[in-house]
Amino acid sequence: MNNIVKIKRALISAANKSLLKNILPVLSKFKVEIISSSGTYKEIKKFGFKSIEISNFTGSNEILQGRVKTLHPKIHAGILNIRNNKSHKLDLIKNNFKEIDLVIVNFYPFENAIKINNFKNIIENIDIGGPTLVRAAAKNFEDVLVVTNPKNYKYVINEINKYKGSTTLNLRKQMAINAFNEIANYDSIIANYFNDKFNVSFPYKKTFSGKLVENLRYGENPHQSAAIYSTYKNLNLKYLHGKNLSFNNYNDIFFALSISKFLKKKEGTVIIKHANPCGASGEKNKLKSFKSAFKCDPISAFGGIVLSNFRINKKLAKQINKFYFEVIIANGFDKDALKILKKKKNIRLIDATNFKNKESYAPTFYKETFVYQSPDDLIINKKNLKVISKKKPTKKQWESLIFAMNICKYVKSNAIVLVKDKSTIGIGSGQPNRVDSCKLAIIKARKFQPEKLLNCVAASDAFFPFTDGVEKLIQAGVNAIIQPSGSIRDKEIIKLANKTNTVLVFSKTRHFKH
Amino acid sequence: MNNIVKIKRALISAANKSLLKNILPVLSKFKVEIISSSGTYKEIKKFGFKSIEISNFTGSNEILQGRVKTLHPKIHAGILNIRNNKSHKLDLIKNNFKEIDLVIVNFYPFENAIKINNFKNIIENIDIGGPTLVRAAAKNFEDVLVVTNPKNYKYVINEINKYKGSTTLNLRKQMAINAFNEIANYDSIIANYFNDKFNVSFPYKKTFSGKLVENLRYGENPHQSAAIYSTYKNLNLKYLHGKNLSFNNYNDIFFALSISKFLKKKEGTVIIKHANPCGASGEKNKLKSFKSAFKCDPISAFGGIVLSNFRINKKLAKQINKFYFEVIIANGFDKDALKILKKKKNIRLIDATNFKNKESYAPTFYKETFVYQSPDDLIINKKNLKVISKKKPTKKQWESLIFAMNICKYVKSNAIVLVKDKSTIGIGSGQPNRVDSCKLAIIKARKFQPEKLLNCVAASDAFFPFTDGVEKLIQAGVNAIIQPSGSIRDKEIIKLANKTNTVLVFSKTRHFKH
Repeated sequence: MNNIVKIKRALISAANKSLLKNILPVLSKFKVEIISSSGTYKEIKKFGFKSIEISNFTGSNEILQGRVKTLHPKIHAGILNIRNNKSHKLDLIKNNFKEIDLVIVNFYPFENAIKINNFKNIIENIDIGGPTLVRAAAKNFEDVLVVTNPKNYKYVINEINKYKGSTTLNLRKQMAINAFNEIANYDSIIANYFNDKFNVSFPYKKTFSGKLVENLRYGENPHQSAAIYSTYKNLNLKYLHGKNLSFNNYNDIFFALSISKFLKKKEGTVIIKHANPCGASGEKNKLKSFKSAFKCDPISAFGGIVLSNFRINKKLAKQINKFYFEVIIANGFDKDALKILKKKKNIRLIDATNFKNKESYAPTFYKETFVYQSPDDLIINKKNLKVISKKKPTKKQWESLIFAMNICKYVKSNAIVLVKDKSTIGIGSGQPNRVDSCKLAIIKARKFQPEKLLNCVAASDAFFPFTDGVEKLIQAGVNAIIQPSGSIRDKEIIKLANKTNTVLVFSKTRHFKH
Repeated sequence: MNNIVKIKRALISAANKSLLKNILPVLSKFKVEIISSSGTYKEIKKFGFKSIEISNFTGSNEILQGRVKTLHPKIHAGILNIRNNKSHKLDLIKNNFKEIDLVIVNFYPFENAIKINNFKNIIENIDIGGPTLVRAAAKNFEDVLVVTNPKNYKYVINEINKYKGSTTLNLRKQMAINAFNEIANYDSIIANYFNDKFNVSFPYKKTFSGKLVENLRYGENPHQSAAIYSTYKNLNLKYLHGKNLSFNNYNDIFFALSISKFLKKKEGTVIIKHANPCGASGEKNKLKSFKSAFKCDPISAFGGIVLSNFRINKKLAKQINKFYFEVIIANGFDKDALKILKKKKNIRLIDATNFKNKESYAPTFYKETFVYQSPDDLIINKKNLKVISKKKPTKKQWESLIFAMNICKYVKSNAIVLVKDKSTIGIGSGQPNRVDSCKLAIIKARKFQPEKLLNCVAASDAFFPFTDGVEKLIQAGVNAIIQPSGSIRDKEIIKLANKTNTVLVFSKTRHFKH
């Protein structure tokens, strides 16, 4: 193993050319011979430095309109030879090949190429030579330095200066790790582009990737370390104010955004605590909507996250400011509303106007294993529902039933949601049996808004295995229930509904969420 | 775009050589010229077929002990040329290069290389030429067929026969998608090997990958499609009996296994329902342990998952068989126990003896974004605890307190766990406020084992923000409480504990789980 390696020769092929101007002077200073690909050659010349074009170096012309430039044994032997291996040395001498000690390569981000090109040009953007150079150099990190990320230039320049034109094993190793991650990310984006384009949901091998957005102070708990990653640096969220977002904030924010998906555009409020909704309202009036969502469980809402599907105005801001919340997400803020909310130093304000609420397939990881599934993105509406009781729902009941089921989808199973006038009044969540969730929802409603229990509606995320839960709900005042069918006791439940003059609507679809 | 492409020339470089014997006859039948790398050349010869060694084809010797073989313009131009592009055609003619229409390449699985080699040989296993061939051929799928997975040979052979030595665009596209996924997976495993080896937890770019283990009947709900993936095909679980595992089964199984991690080796029982423990016992006696875990919430346990950290004997099997469970996981089964359990056709039996219970960093995905964190793998023991009350815990209380907190870690927040004699008697989970979780736990205990409430112990996954929850617990009979400290009302809580002669133990660590 070679700790210090003098850089005699460098190969540069960079999509990001502007930052090269920083690294060229140091290479020139230590008399490093530079080999460059055609585009990079021109740029280096512009910056006033010398280099040899790859085709001159190899004696092979660039062919197929640039598709084949660097895939040449002279280049790859120059990179891949083990410096202290005599047989390798002999091969180089025999072939008149020269050692390449530094490889600077970066590619045009494929995630950007996808956005702006047609299929033919996207294909042309799949770099073959570049990744091969990077992989070769990273493999041979014991002798070669590979730099893929312009963000590392400054650090690399300092190191090269410090070691007078040489590289240390430690630097080469660090940069090789970066390079392997870079290549894996690049290939993963290409693979998933093809999977998406040609509707391959479950390929034989599947990868996921992301770019570091930021390191987080800690994870779900203070003794856990954490970071957030994304394909696109910008999560399409605009941070307007407040402390850095925490792991749990992000968790709750994305969860809130996913719920807001079914709400009417620019209507409704959702309050989240511990990744569970603790209040939601589909009311049209901004202030009323917030107030109704909050009233569902004002104790739990303390320190929670408010998602306002509205643009927040002064009046709403004043109302929100009366309580302690960690995060407010809204589809825009009026100037004067922002001024009011910003008075609280610690509150985080996020504008989600540009957030695209498309759910997608997602994996759940357990060590090196993951289950992977399509999203539960069915939005419940009248079409996928069937009235099964003699009593038919009124228009208002329909609205509330559909609203209740759409919220229920997002509550951890077993889930029961009570709704009056398109606002939740009781949420029973996360219980290992259904009747307990019924009780919880009723207890909540009795505690905070007992006057609303009479003639409210209930949604259940899965069928009732017994009549006990249904009985409890009806006794508490519920007069319309929506639930997936499928229990062997469905008939008993229908009978009970008819006996008590309760509206019973069957959805076909279960909505477990764990 | 060229729909039908006659295969004139194929390049083969395969780590998996045995299966080549199936594909060689069809290539021979349609007079395809074969170019092969050295090892493959020998194998093809053994099978009685002809091929040209790459070095003969390119006129360049294989050098650097095989590190550089295929990285040659003649090879890559042969693959990458666009057949209906005149300029490309001209380049080929000028250089006397020939079209390569089929590329069969596979690599030795890097995940296996890691297991059996030292670092130097692992590095040597990073294939540079192979992935480049595959990427080039996949990029040019409109003209070239690439086959990376021997599992596809049969299908490919049928197609080639069907089209009399030609390939269709559809076949080339399908195989290109496979190839891109293959490469991304290969690179991801390399990158993560380096991350692990050199302790890079949060690289600037991060990938995950897995190999399809099986498609699942459906996902969390019947309208969601799903599959399970892993780095290693064998999840270290042995399926002994029963229907295929469902998505929710897998979810609960991995969750159960993670909880069992803190239990003493070959001791204890955990029952899971909806990804929440609904009963757990650290009792030494097998039968007693199961019975105690079950008694915590026999209603919720219905249809749940039982993890027995014991080897299941006949007696225990008989007891388990009295109830309906979906899955039984155990550290082994006695023969006669297995016979008893297998009487139920639908029960799934899993031997987890070989499962390695090491938790690791895990991502949580929201579309193209993910948060990524280290595991909450702290096992609670006396060392990280501090008695803060005047009253000191007895030895038995210590045991129960530690057991309660270790279970509490895995209960969805807010979590309260009541324990008597190293068995849970009440679990309050998934509530948006702590006092509700206290109430839930107490209700459970009152319902099923009221006699055990007096002098039981309680654990809380995070500090009590107010004294109300603590009051409720003490009133219900709790006489020892363990909780992380950090509330502004800690002093009030200590005062309350001392006033009521309650043991109060502070852990330093919060255990939110969402």
